Amino acid sequence: MRLLIIGGSDAGITAALRARELDSTTEVTVVVADSFPNYSICGLPFFLSGEVSDWHTLAHRTADEIERKGVHLWLNHTAQSIDPEARSVTVVDQQGRAKSLSYDRLIIATGATSVNSTIPGSGLPGVHQLHSMADTFHMQKHLLDQAPRSAIIVGGGYIGLEMADALTHRGIKEVNLVVRSASVLRSTLSTSVARVVEQELRRCGVKITNGIAVEAIERTGERLTVMGTRGFKASADLVLVAVGVRPATTLARSAGITTGLHGAIRVNREMATNIPDIYAAGDCVETWHHLLRTYTYLPLGTTAHKQGRIAGENAVGGHRQFAGSLGTQVVKVFDLAVARTGLLEDEASATGYEPVGRNLATWDHKVYYPGARKLLLRIIGDQRTGQLLGGQIVGPWQAEVAKRIDTLAVALSYGMTVEALNDLDLSYAPPFSSPWDPVQMAAQGWTRGLAG
Amino acid sequence: MRLLIIGGSDAGITAALRARELDSTTEVTVVVADSFPNYSICGLPFFLSGEVSDWHTLAHRTADEIERKGVHLWLNHTAQSIDPEARSVTVVDQQGRAKSLSYDRLIIATGATSVNSTIPGSGLPGVHQLHSMADTFHMQKHLLDQAPRSAIIVGGGYIGLEMADALTHRGIKEVNLVVRSASVLRSTLSTSVARVVEQELRRCGVKITNGIAVEAIERTGERLTVMGTRGFKASADLVLVAVGVRPATTLARSAGITTGLHGAIRVNREMATNIPDIYAAGDCVETWHHLLRTYTYLPLGTTAHKQGRIAGENAVGGHRQFAGSLGTQVVKVFDLAVARTGLLEDEASATGYEPVGRNLATWDHKVYYPGARKLLLRIIGDQRTGQLLGGQIVGPWQAEVAKRIDTLAVALSYGMTVEALNDLDLSYAPPFSSPWDPVQMAAQGWTRGLAG
Repeated sequence: MRLLIIGGSDAGITAALRARELDSTTEVTVVVADSFPNYSICGLPFFLSGEVSDWHTLAHRTADEIERKGVHLWLNHTAQSIDPEARSVTVVDQQGRAKSLSYDRLIIATGATSVNSTIPGSGLPGVHQLHSMADTFHMQKHLLDQAPRSAIIVGGGYIGLEMADALTHRGIKEVNLVVRSASVLRSTLSTSVARVVEQELRRCGVKITNGIAVEAIERTGERLTVMGTRGFKASADLVLVAVGVRPATTLARSAGITTGLHGAIRVNREMATNIPDIYAAGDCVETWHHLLRTYTYLPLGTTAHKQGRIAGENAVGGHRQFAGSLGTQVVKVFDLAVARTGLLEDEASATGYEPVGRNLATWDHKVYYPGARKLLLRIIGDQRTGQLLGGQIVGPWQAEVAKRIDTLAVALSYGMTVEALNDLDLSYAPPFSSPWDPVQMAAQGWTRGLAG
Repeated sequence: MRLLIIGGSDAGITAALRARELDSTTEVTVVVADSFPNYSICGLPFFLSGEVSDWHTLAHRTADEIERKGVHLWLNHTAQSIDPEARSVTVVDQQGRAKSLSYDRLIIATGATSVNSTIPGSGLPGVHQLHSMADTFHMQKHLLDQAPRSAIIVGGGYIGLEMADALTHRGIKEVNLVVRSASVLRSTLSTSVARVVEQELRRCGVKITNGIAVEAIERTGERLTVMGTRGFKASADLVLVAVGVRPATTLARSAGITTGLHGAIRVNREMATNIPDIYAAGDCVETWHHLLRTYTYLPLGTTAHKQGRIAGENAVGGHRQFAGSLGTQVVKVFDLAVARTGLLEDEASATGYEPVGRNLATWDHKVYYPGARKLLLRIIGDQRTGQLLGGQIVGPWQAEVAKRIDTLAVALSYGMTVEALNDLDLSYAPPFSSPWDPVQMAAQGWTRGLAG
């Protein structure tokens, strides 16, 4: 059986390895557009910050490690067309030479691309995006060759915030973050929680301008000027546009594969497309949301790994279903960890829930033990049924914020009520928590608030 | 309605506050044997280590805070008898003056006492136990007045280990830990995981002697000698015996309340005893185990809080059930966090499961991001059904070990399979985890091991 996979990032490589793990007789080939299979895209900001000195270490696995598992990599080849009738894919190398590869099963894992190009001027020298290794090398060269002293970051999502941190860490004193919505991390955090993140950014010298849609970027000499709504105008030596991604699905569409939200490939929960024997996974597909009970476009590395693993399993005869995303995320912003899982109030309302959110500030561990740190926790629950709908935690990044959100994520997987969080047998010793973990204290606060 | 509670530690105070929270018309009185209501017993080692400088801060809540919630505290009063017919309790003060208190509902939260006295010589000067504030002051005085230079700790449970850490931290160079079983933390960890903890203890200068039952303690001048099986004999300036606790239930038994395992009070899952209107909670009761589906004796602070909250709720008319313990625990031993949840192999076998345990060593977060630390994770699952039965994690204490065990604890609450852990949408960013969290990597390792 020949399994062909288009795309060598998280979903594609995970699918390849899973297929080989389950059936070592399968011939698995992965077509990789560049020479960086399975690189950790999430690690790019930490290379640019200087915290990661050698970019080679960003590989989740090296090409050698992947090939040693019996996966054939076609590096620097781009898939140009799929012929579902003939079960073949035409690929071209960097010299434009074409070749046809046959398959019995195909997995499309073409990922996403940055949506930067919608802003006039986003192609100017000195204006960057950050999605691929090539983008990274390009930006690194700019930073090394021209030592920019100021930067404008367009976009208040997690890449925007990580890069505000990274560029500051690298020594750029003047970092200006321009955000379209009224608060940073608009799709991740409720406003009151986002304000704490904004305080941290400002504490570390980042200037934030909320509520501005960037309309154009212009270049005068070495200087770039960003213009936006409400008369916004600011200049800097470097501009990074990080306003999101869109699924890379031109190839899939041209083969007759159905797409939906934002042009993402429609898959069922077995990660199968509408065309027999063609699966898809990762940032190029619509993602089943466990709480919304519908498909969304929610590209995340964790999801890509899970979907890839399922596509790989099913391509060799499995029938495993993707359990669904909860939108669980964490991001480090200077000294804070910022984490959320589940729904925001507006997402929950739109789905017919009656969400109520309540914040609680408390210590990560017993305050008598040295080093206690204050956390802000937000619990969102349905006021009619008491069902837990989501949670957010912000606190010093050493305060087990990331794994505390996971407690809520597992609870959400099972449709727990807020009140039932108090039944969970969570670990405690004074250096780590309290007899009621902060997530349980927040749950108790939520219930008291509802009663009072 | 008059609610009387005997015992002012975690279970008793939590019950009192919960009752008042739900029904502010209830008159709530708590009889407290000493003057330290709601002190954090788990914090005692950190006071003795010197990490906590003021013992007052060990109070979860001060007496003032408790009384401000409308709870009457009878400090320094001991309950002597219960008359279930008359619905009254006789208490005596420190001068031996008796008084009768009437109740409509009674909660017994008398806790546990150390079992030290079974070893001949355990009452000698210089031989300590550590269960109450009085024990702590006694030991602190010994440490301050006589500056002991060597110590023998009898018992390899979590108090023994925390105190080995504490006494070393305080500057005692020669600390000798004498353990009855073949490895430390025998009731908490599988042997292979316990060995890592023993390495850490030895690295920090603690001498460990496993497999010795202590038979007697003798005193010669200022020096104490501990003798045990297999000819064991060692001397030191101070001895701490920490070989466990037993439920303090003489009072309850004399009132006709049924007791069971180790003499602990039998309660149903509403925390009601066999006598109408008498509830019990905390270290004095048998505890429902969620996985064993039976009662055990498993005294833990977290459990005491949960049971107290339920007893308080039900005493004012509720019908809430205790969900059950999973035995989740974490302890800090020098630079390690040591955590477990669920069953050990032998507990699981005895219950009819077919447990298989597998270890995986991996990094807490992406190794390219600075500060990655190696964790050892053990997954125990049933080889017939694939059900998750338990987990253990040992790693540097800043590596989110405690809250990672909580992911497994929530999963255990829902009877998840090991394989289903891979479906969980857990948080990831390079400073915090990997796209598959270590607990998921350990789950994949477990499944591969079973297949291979």
